[in-house]
Amino acid sequence: MTDESPRRRAGGRAARQAIRLAAHAETIPFLTRKLAPFEVLDEEGLATIEENADTILQEVGLEFRGDEDALKTLRDAGADVQGVRVRFPRGMCRQIVQASAPRQFTQYARNPERSVEIGGMHTVFAPNYGSPFVRDLDKGRRYGTLEDFRNLVKLTYASPHLHHSGGTVCEPVDIPVNKRHLDMVAAHLRLSDSVMIGAARAYAEANQATLMTPFILAGAMAPVTTAGVCAQTLAEALGGMTFVQLVRPGAPVVLGSFASSMSMQSGAPTFGTPEPALVLYVMAALARRLGVPFRSGGSLCASKIADAQAAYESAATLQPTVLGGVNFVLHAAGWLEGGLTVGYEKFVMDADQCGMMAVFVNGVDMSENGQALDAILGNQPGVHFLGTAHTLANFESAFYRSEIADNNSFEQWQEDGSLDAAARANRIWKKTLAEYEAPPIDPGVDEALNEFIDRRKASMPDSEV
Amino acid sequence: MTDESPRRRAGGRAARQAIRLAAHAETIPFLTRKLAPFEVLDEEGLATIEENADTILQEVGLEFRGDEDALKTLRDAGADVQGVRVRFPRGMCRQIVQASAPRQFTQYARNPERSVEIGGMHTVFAPNYGSPFVRDLDKGRRYGTLEDFRNLVKLTYASPHLHHSGGTVCEPVDIPVNKRHLDMVAAHLRLSDSVMIGAARAYAEANQATLMTPFILAGAMAPVTTAGVCAQTLAEALGGMTFVQLVRPGAPVVLGSFASSMSMQSGAPTFGTPEPALVLYVMAALARRLGVPFRSGGSLCASKIADAQAAYESAATLQPTVLGGVNFVLHAAGWLEGGLTVGYEKFVMDADQCGMMAVFVNGVDMSENGQALDAILGNQPGVHFLGTAHTLANFESAFYRSEIADNNSFEQWQEDGSLDAAARANRIWKKTLAEYEAPPIDPGVDEALNEFIDRRKASMPDSEV
Repeated sequence: MTDESPRRRAGGRAARQAIRLAAHAETIPFLTRKLAPFEVLDEEGLATIEENADTILQEVGLEFRGDEDALKTLRDAGADVQGVRVRFPRGMCRQIVQASAPRQFTQYARNPERSVEIGGMHTVFAPNYGSPFVRDLDKGRRYGTLEDFRNLVKLTYASPHLHHSGGTVCEPVDIPVNKRHLDMVAAHLRLSDSVMIGAARAYAEANQATLMTPFILAGAMAPVTTAGVCAQTLAEALGGMTFVQLVRPGAPVVLGSFASSMSMQSGAPTFGTPEPALVLYVMAALARRLGVPFRSGGSLCASKIADAQAAYESAATLQPTVLGGVNFVLHAAGWLEGGLTVGYEKFVMDADQCGMMAVFVNGVDMSENGQALDAILGNQPGVHFLGTAHTLANFESAFYRSEIADNNSFEQWQEDGSLDAAARANRIWKKTLAEYEAPPIDPGVDEALNEFIDRRKASMPDSEV
Repeated sequence: MTDESPRRRAGGRAARQAIRLAAHAETIPFLTRKLAPFEVLDEEGLATIEENADTILQEVGLEFRGDEDALKTLRDAGADVQGVRVRFPRGMCRQIVQASAPRQFTQYARNPERSVEIGGMHTVFAPNYGSPFVRDLDKGRRYGTLEDFRNLVKLTYASPHLHHSGGTVCEPVDIPVNKRHLDMVAAHLRLSDSVMIGAARAYAEANQATLMTPFILAGAMAPVTTAGVCAQTLAEALGGMTFVQLVRPGAPVVLGSFASSMSMQSGAPTFGTPEPALVLYVMAALARRLGVPFRSGGSLCASKIADAQAAYESAATLQPTVLGGVNFVLHAAGWLEGGLTVGYEKFVMDADQCGMMAVFVNGVDMSENGQALDAILGNQPGVHFLGTAHTLANFESAFYRSEIADNNSFEQWQEDGSLDAAARANRIWKKTLAEYEAPPIDPGVDEALNEFIDRRKASMPDSEV
């Protein structure tokens, strides 16, 4: 899983290096950013958007369809309910959310060391979510299966750069719709010991976290302008979060934003463009002002394959994700084709980028060792630093080591087969799956899980709805 | 040059759309950022690095080799000169630079509308510099020629997203070394009317701008740590800038930083990693504190081809370049293989990313039209915004339109030949060159240029040194 050529792997030096590399790639449970978030709007601008959201909630309101109990709850709390339309007096939503929604909460994993903190200065990377298709270089694009689902859970578990097992990492289309969830949850429980989104998606009534993520395709679900998209996103999310807090004050709730620009020729969503990046930065700031965790971003792209388009677009989403201070990141690895497809090679590449972000958010080490002044003062002009004590003491952890990047000379790269990044990623995910070892699970628990799943499946006929 | 399928190009609607698109892609002479730069160090951290730079200048000093006049100038100004080693009393360099170096200056273009402002809140994108090799999908990797040089000047001129014609966009290896500069300057003057780096590299004595860019491969030319790299970069650049100000107070001088991390296996420079991004953010802040323009970043990568590695790495450099507030950006388009090669397809892709940055740096439009509150209040829940007056009034300029991105459905993309981004970029640069028209030049000036070049070339034998 490094870029060194195979011949260097032989011998004692290479073996020692491999051990050092393995130690270096230790999993951290989530990121804790040491850098203040990047801001694109000042206090006045943010306050204006908050006022606009209040105006939208007051004058247009939201529709809560098919749930009389919800309407009653909202009416009792002071909302103006007419039919399914709910209008909120100015400030009501903010007040309710701020009164009880936690700023930060813990999502517990089967392995306590893998539990994650959602909120504050923390960032949690979870893999792709919800794609019906999968793609790899060998078999191309096809419907996802339970085997793909299990592979993606394994790859997530094996990556030191992803912190959360995710949820519907792909749709296992080979399993009847009404029974899929059983196999999916079983895969998360057995093949990983990290958090799974299934818990985060459970209902607020059970005091489980809810993501309130308006999906805004700017121009379709909202005006085309950034400030308009933000006001509407905030209004919709506030309405949903308010309902959650009314149902169970204190239930964790996450403000989400998923905004895409749009091809004005075809109406297709576009990703990695500057407008959604601006929306993300603004919404992150608004979530901080509200005092709730924020979900957005990921490694989003419109590209069909793991090419340069996919990479540019994903990077142009992941950078704002991290610099804006997103707390919970779905789609951090694997996303292709506007989410229709999850790619194995893309997964490996994106996870590598997540690893770089983990280094970046630590900021600059200003310790004496970080300043390295003695090392500089000890060297004369024209003398290199390769052999200095400071370099020898620091080189193992000095620089992020990409699994994917080929930094060799052109000639060496050619000798290695002139592979592109996708071809190298293809080797990596296969090696990872081949070497995968499941985390330990109590045999009694495992058996009980199996029995439960078998019983539930037998209790109902297969269904595709 | 859009992502629409060919069949949509026929007919009146498509023609009108083409005109609108052309108008939309108007060249802006340079970026003027409306966003405060991203900061990774606080006041105390930055002051510590400045103190460390002073300590380096005082205790280690710099060597000024082979120039007795330079040593005399520096001694006369108060430096401690021993042999070629020059040590500077604490604060001397900063004082001299701040006394006379301009915060911002203008670089004049043949076409006054293409003159650029270097410094302040401005960012100027210039193409790749100095690569001996070129690459395209048709002919692969080969030595650069004068034809490649001319092509790259043309592509730069034709791009609405690049602001500066650059300099040695590639090395025209087919022309004798001692005569290359004549053909290179002639190409810049004839095939473009933008600024050329030739002027910026001229000597300070002629009051022309100088870039003082220490090249730091961390671990080789400096310690491996970010704070160490920054202190040493600042010290070296300060020494050079001080000399320039002593020679001609007020001559424009740009603080440059080119720092790369290193593969500790092979010693090869690596790009797009988190450590150089941190260095860039710190150095940009230090240049602002010093009060001089800053040069760094670009679309750097180690990849040999225009694949996902190239894109991830380039994006991970260009984002800090823009968010950090770099004023002058060499290598903004085309760079491959650590700078050894300039790629035609990579050039087109990178320029597209520069176009996105031009939109991003404008920040959020908080005008009444930007807020779009009336449009939202006028829409009921569940009603889309595609046909609203606000959308119709804004859609032409609402979203950045990538030349390269394919946002079509998978099926449409397949029908169009399943091309990757590089293959689409290949079509674009060929079309651009085929449609290229040189900017007007006075025939008398043109003739005089030719005569001068012919006379100079005839005056000396060819030489490869």
